[in-house]
Parts: sequence; C-alpha cells; structure tokens
Amino acid sequence: MSEKLDRLNEILGEVSDLKHAQSVLDWDQNVSMPPGGSEARGQQLATLGKIAHEKSTTDEVGKLLEDLKKEFTNSDSDEAALIRVAGREYDKATRVPAKFIARQAIVTSKAFEAWVEAKGKSDFSIFQPHLEKVVELVHEYISFFPPAEHPYDTLLDDYEPGMNTADVQEIFSSLRPKQVELIKAIKSARQVKDDFLHKKYNEKKIWEFGEAIITKFGYEWSRGRQDKAPHPFQTTFSVDDTRITNRYEVDNPLATLFSAMHEAGHAMYEQGSNRAYERTPLAGGTSLAVHESQSRMWENLVGRSLPFCEHFFPELKKTFPSQLDGVSAKSFYKAINKVESSLIRVNADEATYNLHVMLRLELEIGMVEGKFAVKDLPEIWNAKMNDYLGIVPPNDAQGVLQDVHWSSGLMGYFSTYALGNLISAQVWEKVNEDIKDLDEQIRKGKFDSLLGWLRGKIHIYGRKYDPQDLVQKVTGSKIDSAAYVRYLTNKYSAIYGL
Amino acid sequence: MSEKLDRLNEILGEVSDLKHAQSVLDWDQNVSMPPGGSEARGQQLATLGKIAHEKSTTDEVGKLLEDLKKEFTNSDSDEAALIRVAGREYDKATRVPAKFIARQAIVTSKAFEAWVEAKGKSDFSIFQPHLEKVVELVHEYISFFPPAEHPYDTLLDDYEPGMNTADVQEIFSSLRPKQVELIKAIKSARQVKDDFLHKKYNEKKIWEFGEAIITKFGYEWSRGRQDKAPHPFQTTFSVDDTRITNRYEVDNPLATLFSAMHEAGHAMYEQGSNRAYERTPLAGGTSLAVHESQSRMWENLVGRSLPFCEHFFPELKKTFPSQLDGVSAKSFYKAINKVESSLIRVNADEATYNLHVMLRLELEIGMVEGKFAVKDLPEIWNAKMNDYLGIVPPNDAQGVLQDVHWSSGLMGYFSTYALGNLISAQVWEKVNEDIKDLDEQIRKGKFDSLLGWLRGKIHIYGRKYDPQDLVQKVTGSKIDSAAYVRYLTNKYSAIYGL
Repeated sequence: MSEKLDRLNEILGEVSDLKHAQSVLDWDQNVSMPPGGSEARGQQLATLGKIAHEKSTTDEVGKLLEDLKKEFTNSDSDEAALIRVAGREYDKATRVPAKFIARQAIVTSKAFEAWVEAKGKSDFSIFQPHLEKVVELVHEYISFFPPAEHPYDTLLDDYEPGMNTADVQEIFSSLRPKQVELIKAIKSARQVKDDFLHKKYNEKKIWEFGEAIITKFGYEWSRGRQDKAPHPFQTTFSVDDTRITNRYEVDNPLATLFSAMHEAGHAMYEQGSNRAYERTPLAGGTSLAVHESQSRMWENLVGRSLPFCEHFFPELKKTFPSQLDGVSAKSFYKAINKVESSLIRVNADEATYNLHVMLRLELEIGMVEGKFAVKDLPEIWNAKMNDYLGIVPPNDAQGVLQDVHWSSGLMGYFSTYALGNLISAQVWEKVNEDIKDLDEQIRKGKFDSLLGWLRGKIHIYGRKYDPQDLVQKVTGSKIDSAAYVRYLTNKYSAIYGL
Repeated sequence: MSEKLDRLNEILGEVSDLKHAQSVLDWDQNVSMPPGGSEARGQQLATLGKIAHEKSTTDEVGKLLEDLKKEFTNSDSDEAALIRVAGREYDKATRVPAKFIARQAIVTSKAFEAWVEAKGKSDFSIFQPHLEKVVELVHEYISFFPPAEHPYDTLLDDYEPGMNTADVQEIFSSLRPKQVELIKAIKSARQVKDDFLHKKYNEKKIWEFGEAIITKFGYEWSRGRQDKAPHPFQTTFSVDDTRITNRYEVDNPLATLFSAMHEAGHAMYEQGSNRAYERTPLAGGTSLAVHESQSRMWENLVGRSLPFCEHFFPELKKTFPSQLDGVSAKSFYKAINKVESSLIRVNADEATYNLHVMLRLELEIGMVEGKFAVKDLPEIWNAKMNDYLGIVPPNDAQGVLQDVHWSSGLMGYFSTYALGNLISAQVWEKVNEDIKDLDEQIRKGKFDSLLGWLRGKIHIYGRKYDPQDLVQKVTGSKIDSAAYVRYLTNKYSAIYGL
C-alpha cells in the first residue's frame, strides 16, 4: 500500500464524515427541526461546509493527488478511479472560496424556510427575495470557473460529469417531438377511467402498504427508514444508513406508494455501493441521472407495469375494498398510467413527465443567461405550462413553488430527471435480455434476480465509472432516447389501443 | 470591541457549531437511526469531536486567552466570564489528546449499541467488555491531569466545576442518616393506596397529557420537540432548538408525565439562556447540578405538589375516568408521593432517590480506585440495593443496566442528580419568599411568575457564574442539604402523618 494513498484516504475520510454530518443536519431540518431552529442550523451547516471545504482543498491534498496520479496508472483500478474522482472534486473545490460556501449555506437555509412558508401560503412573493439571492450566488459560482461553451455547462457538470448543455439540448430536441406526437395520439384516443384513484384512502394504511412494497423490492430497513417531509427525498449517512422521506397528499393518495418506490430505488442504489468505497469519494451513486434511472425504474418500469399490478393489486383491493370495488388489476393498471396534462412534476405520468423537466431547464437557462428575472417566474412558468401542457396552475403552490430544488441552491439539476428516464429504459432492455422471465418473476412478487442484476452491474461500482462510461459498459451505448421512446410507444399503444 | 475577542469568538463559534452538530448526530442515534448506522455514526462523531478538539486547542487560542485575560479585568463582565470559562475548557482540552477523544467516541458509540441490546435482553455479559473499555478510557483520561486529592475529583470537576469528591461525600454523609431516618419513620406509618397508578393507561393519551402539562409550564414548542427514545434526555442544538425525549413504560404509565416535566425543566433552562451567549461557551446551563435543580423543581416541587395535583387531577380524571374512578386529588397526590424502595432510579420517589445516587457514586469511585472489577458490578449492585433499600433486582435490566450513562462514558455525573435535588429545595425556599401566592398560582395552573423568576435569576446567566457562585447569588448560601431535609420532612410528615 502507498503511504500517500493512506494519507489521502485519511483526509478524505474526515471530509466524508463532515459531509455525512451535514446530511444528517439537513435531514433533521426537513423531517424534525422545530421552526425556531432554522437560523442556528444554517450557521451549523455553514461551518461544517466551510471546514469540509478547507480540509479538501489544502495544498497537501493537491500535492498528494498529483503524486498519486503518477503512481497509479492502471486506469481501471479502484485507486486510479479514486484519484480521478477526488482530483476532479479538488479542481472544482479549489476554485470556490470557503467563504462563498459558508454564505451559500446560510442563504439557502433561509431560502428553504421561506420556500416552506411560501408554498404553504401559495405566495411567491415570500420566496422571491430569497430566490433572487440564490440566483446571484449561482452567477457568482459560475464566475469562479473558466468560461464554458455555455455558462449553464458549469452547473450541469456538477451533476452529470461529462455532459454539457448542448448534449442535453440535442437529446431533448430529438425526444420532444416524439413525446408530443405520442401525447397527441393519446389525447384523441378513448380515455381511461381513474376516479377510484382519487377517493379517500386512509393515510396510515397507504403509508404501510408502500412500506410493504419496498420491503419486497429489497430495501433493507435495518439500514434505512422512511419519514414524513414536505418533499420526498433520499439521503445517505453511510452505506448502512440510507433514508427516504415521503408525504401524503389528500387529493392524490396513491402518489405515496409511487414516491416510496421511487425513493427506495435511490436508496437501494446507495445500499448496494461497494463497502470498500466507504468514506471515500467513490461511495454512492455515480451521477444524478444514473441515480434517477434506478428510482424511475423501480417506480415506473416495475411499479407501473402490468405484471406488478397483477401481483400487488389483489392485496391493495383487500386493503381498500370499498375504494376499489369493481376495479380489476388491468383497469387499475390503466388508471395509474393515465396520460393527462397535470400540474405537479412528481405526480406526472411518464408520457408528460419530461415536458415538466424541459420547462424547468428552460427557466434555469433563462435565469443563468439573465433573460428571465426572478420576479417574472410565476408568469413565465404559467405561460409555458399553457404552451406545453395546455393547463395553467391555479396558484403558485401548484406552479413555480412546487419543487424544493431552487430553495436549496440546486440549479443544473432538473435535466438529470429526464436523462434518468432515458437510462432506465436502456438498462431495462438489457435486464430483460439477461433475465428472460422477469415479467413472470415480477408477477410473483420476486425481485431478487432484478436487484441482484442491478447490484452486480451498477450499484457495486459506486462512482468508479463516470455516467456515460457506466451506461456504455452496461448497455453497450451512451445515453440515448431510442429505448425510452420504444418503451413509451409500446406501453401506451397497448393501453390506449393506438 | 477587541479584535482579539472577535477572533476568539469566531473560533469558539465554529467549535460550538461542531459540538451542536455532534448533539444532532447523537440525538438522531438515540431517536431515529437504524441499527446498521451505528458504526459509521461512531466514526462521524469521532471526526467531529477530533476537529472541535483541534480547533479549540490551537496555540492561537491559548495566546488569545492569555492576552484577553489581561485586557478584560472587570470580573463581573460577560467578557471576563467568557475568558474564564473558555480558559478552563482550554486548559482541560489541551491535556487530552485529540486521538484519545476520537477513540473514546468510537468506543462509546459501540458501547451504547451494546447497552441497548444488553438492556433489551437483560444480559450484562453483552455490555461488560464494552464497559471494561470505557473504564480503561476513564483511567487514561484521569492520567492526563495532575494528581488530585482523589482521582475521582478529575471526573467530578468536569460536571461540577469547583466541587471535589470530599465536598460531595461530606454533603452526602450529613444527608444520608436523615433520609434513612425519614424512610424508617415512613415504613412504620400507615401505607398509602396507589393501585390505580398501575392500571393500563392509553400510551398516546398519556403522551399528549404530558405535552399539555409542559405547554402550561412554558416549554416553547416552536423551539423544541419531544420524541420517543430508550432513555429520557434533553439536548440542545441552539437556544431556539432544545429537544426532549421520553418513553412509555407499561408497568409505570404515569412516569411518562413526570419525565416530560423533568426534561422540560432542563429544556426551559436552556430556552432561557441569554441570546447574547449563543455560539460562545457561556450558552446553556452552568453545571449539571444546577441543571438538575431546574428539572427536579418542575418534576417534584411543582409536579408532585398538592396544589399542582389540585390543578391537573380533574382533567386527568376526565381523560382516564375508569382508571381513576373514586380517586380524589388528595389521594392521587399521596399515591404519586408514595415512598417505597424501588428498583429504577428515574422512577424512585423523592425520599429514596438520593440513595440510588449514592450507590452509583460508590460504584464509580470503586471502579476508579480499581477496587471493583466491571465483571462484578451486577453482584455488587444487587448487594448494595439490598443493603440500602432492602430489595434485589430480579434481572440486570432493572439493575446495573438501567442507566445509559456509563455506555456514553459518563462517570462523575451521578452525584450531580442528588446535588440538584438539594439546590432545587434551596431555590424553592427563595422563590416562595419572593412570590407569596405561588401555591395559589400553581393551583390555578399559572406558571408565568415562576418561570419568569427562574429566567431572571438563573436561566439568563447561562454559564456566566460557576455553580457554587450562582447558588450563593440566588439563595445566599452555598450548596447545602438543610433546605432539602426541611422540604422532605414537611412533605412526608403531612402525607404519612408522622
């Protein structure tokens, strides 16, 4: 073993501990913290961020990385991957001053609280001054980096290393007309009945049903938990403590089930990361899009499939006999896949979902280019919703205030959701080549071969391979929309008899 | 303003943030963490502890403290108090190596998990090897300090600055015969009826009743919360986020009410600390004994008083009509103050409580002196229980495993519980001199004058005054058992007609 590598791991181990401590404080802020705690919590997160930043950007770390790059030249080794990923993070982090990170933590902590209040009161004006500060910080952040082809590239690269704005725009512009065409065809077809989805369902029973499903999927509770939060999310404190949050919406009670499957998909990716990578930058998921491919696979390709409905619907009907009286697995399947222009991204069906993402991407690019002012966002949002989906949100809570991301300073993030959908379909075609009777297994509620496949081909590698390389390795091609278009077309042709 | 003081505050502010982050991680470990999370959590706590230690023990901090001591000479100023308290912590911390702190965090994290398991299975052998490691660490810790009159002095001084083993033993040996005499007199008196306390009470209703009581006391929920944990405790993340935990015991359902009052007493002390002291070593409570004086005051001098029973019993009876059928406020008052030798310290009545503390103090002193081996503790515990209280625990869960403290490395701590009782009675005499109609107010469920008095005379000072100085300032004398003996004698003479 290399002494220099040991020393690097010692330092990066402490940085990892500090970041996981931040995650615990952040989880607590979302799940448990009383409102009074906000100001001090912002300060605490700022201090942890500042110290993690200081520790990971010392000259010693830079020198170690430089020396180790020469020492470990087998590019497929874990050591070389570690040095590459750590090196990339070092390069980024040394460009961003510690004081900026501290300021950002304080601003976003307050912005988060303002967002919660603004969403509760459906009043964008409460959030606006905070979002303006966030956007100022985003501009300042971009300024620390050498000019890219597009200023938005700098943001995107943080979430999808190796992707740039033009790549994403190209993938999206090939995908958009096909989705629009499909939606048009569906709109003119006979509509499916889904009134039974919007009856009153008991919150506790729905919550527990969701937990039973993800237990079958293979989410390990001895290494996780599910809590209530304003927005569903997944967070990792270690490979043995990866948690999910969820919520219950009165007007969309079954969304709780699909959010559980979605977040469990993220969590199982983290639970499957190589233990040898713990407390190193190789632990966890390689990118947001690959992460999203796992969550969307469990939520949609498994959770919203006909075989899975055939498996779990009888039990659901037993749990909610009056709500589901006269409903069959097949008609339930059609209902949960009903295509309809709707307001909330996380509840959108698969055929319309990506349009929500494209809207956000355009708003973000507009803000970054300085073309869109924050104060005009509600209006722009509503106009674009009207253009793309033919509907206008009745209030800001169901419009521009619906997502938590911007309050946390996350810009450059949304397109990874759509990319994740594409990857999920690419991987799914491959899984089905290898597991011939997968549908039959799902119909029986057996998920061990599927999870085993994902663990062995994707999860175990953590962040060793960059997203495009991992997708190439697993599926034989880079990120591409063809498989997703095939998937959508087959699925909705059958449902709507197109 | 002094530039040096600003710099000191900047450093100590970060140290405070790190310590509060540790508290959040620790709370999470007790309240939320899945079992798998234990190992990584230990590592994370160790890293935070190590960094806090490093940051607070630099030569720069030492130099600043030295210079500032000369600059701020008005000993009653906040600045002088800050420099004095920070200086004492610096002296202690520089004696203890960072690596020791890190090792201690890992050992105690594992010891805590082992204690939870051992207590659950009532099997001391699971905890024994971990406690042996804890005791080794305690010896090592003591070795970092100059030899004191007694090695246990070093431990005690961490919790009660200014008190030593001989002081405590003197106070206790004057108190012990009086408590023993009182208990003897009670044992020969007519016994009170309390069977209705041990009926089945609905857990949720009891929990909510406890919350209603502490809301009346003045615990502010916008700056706190109550969660379930294996052991009731209070923890502070900032003046605006001070939380409590509680539990429900089937065989002692009303204990949940008194634990809520107890922990809320701690929390209100922290909620009342001067805001100007936030992120400095002056924030919070001045010592464990003074802290305990506040918790025991709300639990016992308020919560177990006749006026308070007269206030809250009618509502309790309305909530639990079948359980309390035929019971009056007076008979309820007698029942909750029934004196009886019992196994569990936290549920012990006021007349026997201090004997539980004395037992633990003797065991700790025995372990520190090397007179008692860890493996023999269950036997010694049981023998002493038999000697002092005439009863022997049927299992280790109700004996030596009942308290969390040793698993967390806390030794030198227990006597502060008894000292807290003494201080609570000293303060109570003083409060009653100033608020003449306090009993009448309590009977009406009004606690604002009482809380206001405590805030103005005690809470607002945070850690500005050392415990003996604060007690002197508030009551006119140092810590002393006379008031407590008067209180116990008056109370139990009336109840038992002695």
